Amino acid sequence: MMFGAIEAGGTKFVCAVGNEVFEILDQITISTTSPEETMPRVVAFFKPYIGEIKAMGVSSFGPIDVTKGSDTYGYITNTPKVKWQFFDFLGYIKQHIPNVEITWTTDVNGSAYGEYMFREDTKDLVYYTIGTGIGGGAISNGHIIEGVTHPEMGHVPVRKHPDDVFAGICPNHGDCLEGLASGPAIEARLGVNSKDIPASDPYWDIQAYYIAQSAFNTSLFFSPEVIIYGGGVMKVEGLQDKVREQFEAINNGYIDTPLLEEYIVTPTLEDTAAIVGCFAMAKQQIK
Amino acid sequence: MMFGAIEAGGTKFVCAVGNEVFEILDQITISTTSPEETMPRVVAFFKPYIGEIKAMGVSSFGPIDVTKGSDTYGYITNTPKVKWQFFDFLGYIKQHIPNVEITWTTDVNGSAYGEYMFREDTKDLVYYTIGTGIGGGAISNGHIIEGVTHPEMGHVPVRKHPDDVFAGICPNHGDCLEGLASGPAIEARLGVNSKDIPASDPYWDIQAYYIAQSAFNTSLFFSPEVIIYGGGVMKVEGLQDKVREQFEAINNGYIDTPLLEEYIVTPTLEDTAAIVGCFAMAKQQIK
Repeated sequence: MMFGAIEAGGTKFVCAVGNEVFEILDQITISTTSPEETMPRVVAFFKPYIGEIKAMGVSSFGPIDVTKGSDTYGYITNTPKVKWQFFDFLGYIKQHIPNVEITWTTDVNGSAYGEYMFREDTKDLVYYTIGTGIGGGAISNGHIIEGVTHPEMGHVPVRKHPDDVFAGICPNHGDCLEGLASGPAIEARLGVNSKDIPASDPYWDIQAYYIAQSAFNTSLFFSPEVIIYGGGVMKVEGLQDKVREQFEAINNGYIDTPLLEEYIVTPTLEDTAAIVGCFAMAKQQIK
Repeated sequence: MMFGAIEAGGTKFVCAVGNEVFEILDQITISTTSPEETMPRVVAFFKPYIGEIKAMGVSSFGPIDVTKGSDTYGYITNTPKVKWQFFDFLGYIKQHIPNVEITWTTDVNGSAYGEYMFREDTKDLVYYTIGTGIGGGAISNGHIIEGVTHPEMGHVPVRKHPDDVFAGICPNHGDCLEGLASGPAIEARLGVNSKDIPASDPYWDIQAYYIAQSAFNTSLFFSPEVIIYGGGVMKVEGLQDKVREQFEAINNGYIDTPLLEEYIVTPTLEDTAAIVGCFAMAKQQIK
């Protein structure tokens, strides 16, 4: 049995075909430009596999509509990417790739589910990506947490670091987590891309303070076994250690977490978490 | 079939026996003093029903150990109530009330589950109690959210209201939500019990600001269908409306919630939510 996977990111789409043990058999990367340009290339990739693929998992940048029965279920909704606003993603796929069962969730939920599949003894985890935006996905007892819509853990209000005078760039909340600690926020604050800020720069203490607050909030709300921070910004050397130190200070002995080195971590499946998650969601759907 | 329920609160225990449709057939209220005094009265209440009760739900003040396989599973752990510290609650019950299947969770999880049972079309909700302490319990797709341990939503860091100079009373975090907005925090700040503060007092705008932040965080993490605020402090006239107003200001149009009047609400089962929740957990266990 074969499965399809689409990881629809804000910068690039990854499309893949895999087998029952989630090995990638074929894969393509496509730039995220406009639905008119990007989507026909997605369909072209899957065309040879129509009939072979029984189910497909799609994890998309958001916000997206995940409410079954809603008029815009399967749409990307009010995204800042104007060309993708209220694009009927699922409708397009169903029209062009018929007779395939499709599961649809956010990009971070896809990655969270992939990490969950990979970590055999883990039932509860939260996965964040800290990049162009900040998003989080939670798995509780093996299930993706969704309610009226999907979580939006990147927009949690945080306390300002006393040395940080930056006002934040979130158009809705200004200095929420995403407004202060996403890649574009760092670039707006310091005038350089976060990749070009050396690991020794004192800014990373400020960044760690915000991520540590996110980890603390996450612990209070979900009590997960592990919190995984992926995304470009988190690759800075030493940043995870700083986050753990600040977490310890904020928690002040209150919550009894697992060993911090095993609790606040980077992804195991760095680049393939969402694809594995999509395969797994697809397989789950067939079951 | 009959079920037992124990709602073990910090001030009082409510013990009850109910039937399959969760009608209360017998009930007793016992002061929470010490395990030596309180627990024999609990056992005495259930004694006549031994043999008839097949399963029992217990929801307790915390922190408690809910990790199956842990050495202290079923214990109340490092509570500020010294006499109850590391009391083996479940062990005591099992010893004195034999041959009963017991489900064990926090007091707020019990209330959350009771409200969930009562609200027929609701699958995702979060229940808070704002009283002596602040705690929250979440139901996602019908399941109680627990991980390494139970959530501790009362200790979420909040932003200080600009007019609030109070330092907070949480021994671990100072000015977390519980440290600023629990009953004892209000009393420490204003010198009077929250019951005696008139609804017109400007303090309630500050209180609403903190509760609104809790509601906003809760929305970002769980995206529930409804957030229920129970507990003594929330009974002040007009407070829920103030919370909704402040929520709207903080959210600033970002999350598309249900109508706020149906989204941020008081409990439907004011005094019996936890008992109904315990019956339901007991019945679930038998299934």
